[in-house]
Amino acid sequence: METMVMSNKQVIFRDYVTGFLSESDLLINSTTVNLKVPAGSMTALVKNLYLSCDPYMRNRMRKPDPSSPATAMSFVPGKPISGFGVSKVMDSGHPDYKEGDLLWGAVGWEEYSVITPIPNLHFKIHHTDVPLSHYTGLLGMPGMTAYAGFYEICSPKKGETVFVSAASGAVGQLVGQFAKLMGCYVVGSAGSKEKVVDLLKNKFGFDDAFNYKEENDLNAALKRCFPVGIDIYFENVGGKMLDAVILNMRPHGRIAACGMISQYNLQVPEAVYNLWLITYKRIRIQGFNTIDYLHKYSEFLEFVLPYIRQGKITYVEDVADGLESAPAALVGLFRGKNVGKQLVVVSRDLD
Amino acid sequence: METMVMSNKQVIFRDYVTGFLSESDLLINSTTVNLKVPAGSMTALVKNLYLSCDPYMRNRMRKPDPSSPATAMSFVPGKPISGFGVSKVMDSGHPDYKEGDLLWGAVGWEEYSVITPIPNLHFKIHHTDVPLSHYTGLLGMPGMTAYAGFYEICSPKKGETVFVSAASGAVGQLVGQFAKLMGCYVVGSAGSKEKVVDLLKNKFGFDDAFNYKEENDLNAALKRCFPVGIDIYFENVGGKMLDAVILNMRPHGRIAACGMISQYNLQVPEAVYNLWLITYKRIRIQGFNTIDYLHKYSEFLEFVLPYIRQGKITYVEDVADGLESAPAALVGLFRGKNVGKQLVVVSRDLD
Repeated sequence: METMVMSNKQVIFRDYVTGFLSESDLLINSTTVNLKVPAGSMTALVKNLYLSCDPYMRNRMRKPDPSSPATAMSFVPGKPISGFGVSKVMDSGHPDYKEGDLLWGAVGWEEYSVITPIPNLHFKIHHTDVPLSHYTGLLGMPGMTAYAGFYEICSPKKGETVFVSAASGAVGQLVGQFAKLMGCYVVGSAGSKEKVVDLLKNKFGFDDAFNYKEENDLNAALKRCFPVGIDIYFENVGGKMLDAVILNMRPHGRIAACGMISQYNLQVPEAVYNLWLITYKRIRIQGFNTIDYLHKYSEFLEFVLPYIRQGKITYVEDVADGLESAPAALVGLFRGKNVGKQLVVVSRDLD
Repeated sequence: METMVMSNKQVIFRDYVTGFLSESDLLINSTTVNLKVPAGSMTALVKNLYLSCDPYMRNRMRKPDPSSPATAMSFVPGKPISGFGVSKVMDSGHPDYKEGDLLWGAVGWEEYSVITPIPNLHFKIHHTDVPLSHYTGLLGMPGMTAYAGFYEICSPKKGETVFVSAASGAVGQLVGQFAKLMGCYVVGSAGSKEKVVDLLKNKFGFDDAFNYKEENDLNAALKRCFPVGIDIYFENVGGKMLDAVILNMRPHGRIAACGMISQYNLQVPEAVYNLWLITYKRIRIQGFNTIDYLHKYSEFLEFVLPYIRQGKITYVEDVADGLESAPAALVGLFRGKNVGKQLVVVSRDLD
């Protein structure tokens, strides 16, 4: 068997995490990897270019509990963590994946990964007139999440009022722009003046926005922004915000429960008190997982690429440089340090 | 104008209620009523026969708050409360409603009511081979609630697992029987051994049932009854039960939020902590209000009457005798004193 051994830096998962994730829960380690795969092995050796920092990854750090679906894919202590990323095939035993192919999909947090390519989990990148890094966000899993979540789950109609939390994040910024394209009234919340003014209002064209950290009363903030109430809530944060939103939902409103990042580091989740009102308001709350919609990826690309090329959809990324910066980038996500979609560049070298 | 003045006993709403409803919040008073209506007035004078005690009535006792939809129809202090009932038209100025017609629909809690009949709020009773009292329950608003809630909201499929709370109540006993007819595995909860054994298991044929008051750990009770989890939850109680149910829902499960009776007398509703799991489980929680489905009432009758006549659907009523007993009957609903659908007989005299 041909060998070509290289050093391979990895982000190692130290142990299951309780409470707030910290950088010390992740270790940088170096091992070696053979860049050649055995012929006919159906695996591929990929060089990782960009890694995506996503909130759901925190739940994969919980101790496995057979009764909790959030821990069904827990990371293994001592092994590298994994997630979505953009990579280049260096060698492949799989007939459908060739050396030089660019992919986005599931990889380890390391310089090189051995993957077993799976349809709908490893997608070939055919359009490179847009930044490759976008395949961690706008054109990757967060993009599909915004697309499926808004168009399939929210049942939006022109003129409706839409609230998006974590609105400058990987998914939120797209949901807001999709809603504006449909002719909705769109308000977003974020955690800094910079995000609210520079991004939500100026860059993405939200009708209004507020910094939730500066609002003592979320209910009052929502009433101010939505004097007639909210038709659609795209839920990215959970807890107190969800509770305040329910008070402000209009009859027959829809809540797309995409994620609840504010809850993932808590040992006891925040209480929600206002659920009893959903009967009166005929509210639908729908949890969804993008995994169920990945078969629509090519439909999504056909939809979104023209908007990007025409400049009608824009996307802001927060880029951390180098695998060494990956732990801080991931931890920062839960502190709201990222401005836009958080990603890590492992290598810009396409060779 | 012709007059025919009669005494008219009423159940008067003393004042807005905070905390647990008590009998002293309702007063029996006697006034007079003219049994003749002015010709062409479009009103009808009805004699009330049966009154329905329904959980939502507690929310109509809250002080009106423009921001809360639960108080949009608050009762007026000093006036009689109102609800759904079965009545007989004694005189009518409305061309579509004649003397002698039997109706079910919105009336005051009193011996005689002046109503302005409204389609889809006042239904003529055409089938009298079934007990008239059933039009407060099985064939009235609770029946429509069970029908719309189960078939329209729950998206049930044969073989699925169904949990019904307040399962021996006006709506729950029907949902359980509908689910059994569809070939589902059905479990109910109720608040006494009598309800669990005599009604749920023996009379209604639930596959299993438990007394929530005797379970220290609702999560464990649900795990015992649903080793593979819950596909459908028909939610009548809210609070702690909802929280435990979310832990036990299967992926793509559905929760029909019909009502949350455990919350209506609380000044601060109970906390729900487990909502963040609905993303992972892709759970849909749908609040609904029967008012939106009343146009399907004749479809419902065609569906349910054959089952009743064949004895395939049965219905248990808890009958309080006389308007004087109405306050205690209504208060008892929130203590779980009723065994089956709680109603009040005002008069059995059809003349």
